[in-house]
Amino acid sequence: MSAKTPSPAFSVRIRVRIADRPGALGRLAVAIGEAGGNINALEGFTVTTAYLEEDIIVYCSSVEHQQEIRKAVESVPGVSILEWEDRTHALHEGGKIEVVSPVEILDMNTLAMAYSPGVARVCTTIANDTAASFDYTIRKNTVAVVSDGTAVLGLGDIGPEAAMPVMEGKAQLFKQFGGVDAFPICLDTKDPDKIVEIVTALAPTFGGVNLEDISAPRAFEIEERLSAGLDIPVFHDDQHGTAIVTVAGLENALKIVGKKHADLKVIVAGVGAAGVAVSKMLLNAGVTNLVGVDRNGAVHTGREDLNSSKQWFAENTNPERLAGTITEVIKGADVFLGLAGPDLLTVADVESMAKDPIVFAMANPDPEIRPELIKDIAAVIATGRSDFPNQINNVLAFPGIFRGALDARATTISENMKLAAARAIADVVGDDLHPQFIVPTAFDHRVAPAVAEAVRAAAIEDGVCR
Amino acid sequence: MSAKTPSPAFSVRIRVRIADRPGALGRLAVAIGEAGGNINALEGFTVTTAYLEEDIIVYCSSVEHQQEIRKAVESVPGVSILEWEDRTHALHEGGKIEVVSPVEILDMNTLAMAYSPGVARVCTTIANDTAASFDYTIRKNTVAVVSDGTAVLGLGDIGPEAAMPVMEGKAQLFKQFGGVDAFPICLDTKDPDKIVEIVTALAPTFGGVNLEDISAPRAFEIEERLSAGLDIPVFHDDQHGTAIVTVAGLENALKIVGKKHADLKVIVAGVGAAGVAVSKMLLNAGVTNLVGVDRNGAVHTGREDLNSSKQWFAENTNPERLAGTITEVIKGADVFLGLAGPDLLTVADVESMAKDPIVFAMANPDPEIRPELIKDIAAVIATGRSDFPNQINNVLAFPGIFRGALDARATTISENMKLAAARAIADVVGDDLHPQFIVPTAFDHRVAPAVAEAVRAAAIEDGVCR
Repeated sequence: MSAKTPSPAFSVRIRVRIADRPGALGRLAVAIGEAGGNINALEGFTVTTAYLEEDIIVYCSSVEHQQEIRKAVESVPGVSILEWEDRTHALHEGGKIEVVSPVEILDMNTLAMAYSPGVARVCTTIANDTAASFDYTIRKNTVAVVSDGTAVLGLGDIGPEAAMPVMEGKAQLFKQFGGVDAFPICLDTKDPDKIVEIVTALAPTFGGVNLEDISAPRAFEIEERLSAGLDIPVFHDDQHGTAIVTVAGLENALKIVGKKHADLKVIVAGVGAAGVAVSKMLLNAGVTNLVGVDRNGAVHTGREDLNSSKQWFAENTNPERLAGTITEVIKGADVFLGLAGPDLLTVADVESMAKDPIVFAMANPDPEIRPELIKDIAAVIATGRSDFPNQINNVLAFPGIFRGALDARATTISENMKLAAARAIADVVGDDLHPQFIVPTAFDHRVAPAVAEAVRAAAIEDGVCR
Repeated sequence: MSAKTPSPAFSVRIRVRIADRPGALGRLAVAIGEAGGNINALEGFTVTTAYLEEDIIVYCSSVEHQQEIRKAVESVPGVSILEWEDRTHALHEGGKIEVVSPVEILDMNTLAMAYSPGVARVCTTIANDTAASFDYTIRKNTVAVVSDGTAVLGLGDIGPEAAMPVMEGKAQLFKQFGGVDAFPICLDTKDPDKIVEIVTALAPTFGGVNLEDISAPRAFEIEERLSAGLDIPVFHDDQHGTAIVTVAGLENALKIVGKKHADLKVIVAGVGAAGVAVSKMLLNAGVTNLVGVDRNGAVHTGREDLNSSKQWFAENTNPERLAGTITEVIKGADVFLGLAGPDLLTVADVESMAKDPIVFAMANPDPEIRPELIKDIAAVIATGRSDFPNQINNVLAFPGIFRGALDARATTISENMKLAAARAIADVVGDDLHPQFIVPTAFDHRVAPAVAEAVRAAAIEDGVCR
């Protein structure tokens, strides 16, 4: 049996037929429970004289565990399995998004307006003034979710087809939280030049571009070139979404410990897409003493193994030119921001930090240090997981950011817009602020509107609107 | 006042306030009618003691005519205009399609399946077997509607932004008639190499590609290269959609006049995208004597001004090597298929045709000859317009074709699939066959399912399924 916690991600629907004997369902429930499964629901109950049939929803902890549950069910006398379904795969059947129209075309009169001949006049309006495309086409509310499938979740380079379920999920979240129409665009090329060329060519279709799960450092270059070349907002969520929510959480964590950005020593573990973006935002927010750490230790200008992104990083951070392992450089630090991988931080490392250490261990699914190990040492702990307090979840940022950018008809996402988003997220917490509640939960429906309004106002203030 | 017929395409919604005097509304209606407007509806009636307010929907015949109606309304004593709206532009506000999800993400448990961490397993399933993307992503039901905006309706090269309303309308029709999710992709490049490269890179996102409004002869090359390179169906609707419905109509027209394909002399005016595709289908259907005519007259192998597409055409048609103007070559022809422009055919031309001439004057909006001029000469007349009988409308074909191709998991659209679609369209007419009813109407909901089933069966028969 797996040691992990049963989860909906590994849940199964089991349609069973149970002989109508006293206690039969109870024995089945016991068998599932003893095999470590959590029965989440009983549904679709049917009774006949001889037997009953129903769907049992069981949360399991892994694919192997699903099979153990299956064996346990099969071993109960009088029980037979009629259907067996992995609920996560079932939910994905046929994809997760649909393209629909708010206007039904049920007669010739509507057809004559929505399509030929009437549509020709709308085409002409746009041909005479391209900006009208933001009034009369889906550009007003539609974002491309673009990936090349090279850095999908923790799975790495799995290709564009396999990246689609994530991009479709992103599109769902855009709509659910921000009312933004988003469409996945998974590209069968890894060449940054081609990606830039393709997304540039696609721009007339969209009002914004959300880059997703593109490996670093390619993602930086792609975003920079697209931002420079296009007059619609371009946003690499893995960088800026994470950065915004991290900065929001840190802002509230600092209120708890009573420290200021300018006085902090911050260690950033992981100098990839997210690590660089978080660091840039913190430098903008007033942090001066920030040290990045990668697999080879602290990033400083004396190192000769740095790519261009890390070279920039070395030149703009680590004022004391600290060198060495994380254990060496974390001493006396106020804040640890982990965007790297599991278990790279020890309890002793946290103990060596300054008073009231703030630890954001955001690697997913396994954090840089297990929160329970430092609950009596750290003043504030955040992770990337939904099953611990203070989840640093991008969904707090991207729906509201694009909602605000589209509403403002912004041509870019400026630094001020990002900072405004972070502050709006932090502000939603308000008087509920607590070491275990520094960011709103993912389903707090106050967040996206607050972020949208802050981003819209910042765009107008920055004068980056069409 | 315009001489054209008032149409919903030029309709306006006028919110008026009318003083509450006897006959005021009547005088307003008279004024609109005398100005040539058709009052289609009165809506949103509000009455107070002193006045009434309501929306008047008026069909006009042109933009200028809308302004004449406005002046007429303003001139009626006691009437003031509160709002004035061009209904076609209003219908397009914000675009005509939306991206939604059949799965609402309202709690952490659903999020854990639709997105991280659960989605990772679905990604892995596809990474291990790319074909699973047709089960677990939108590829199962989603088509790209791709254009570069170079040949939009009769408007020509108006650019990708201005082409969007047409592609969005196409997406609406795909969904409404075929249950197919379609998404517009308007590209900011006219380079065939780049279009091929971009659409190839986009293929992992889609289950099929519908090319639209790309100018000839570039469209031929683009479709050929994409069809050869991709393992999803690629279909240039301007060619094949028109061809399929034309062939369907001709099949039924031949039943009326009692002639056979093999015995016909067919004149095809317009040797562009649609003309070539129609001709190829007819050659496949058994026509041997087919003569194409372009601006410079009959296309034959002796001409030296032919591009590669017309060279092919010359070599595979016109067995008698006829040369000369349309008036010269149409003599004795059984069938005229017009895919060219207005008024290129005269009554004398039709009179010079064989007994029971069949005339498809499909140029839009103005046909090659006005149907009323030849109603006593031609045995069967078809046009591209909805206000005459026998409209040759692509919407009869493309929704069912992609529905069938997606259902069959076809990797291409074969010649047999196209012919099957044409026959299915023709068969829907059944016993209602009549010179004024050779193709079903656009809103005949029997058509798409019949086409889909025929196309699906043909794909399986051809062995072109995944």
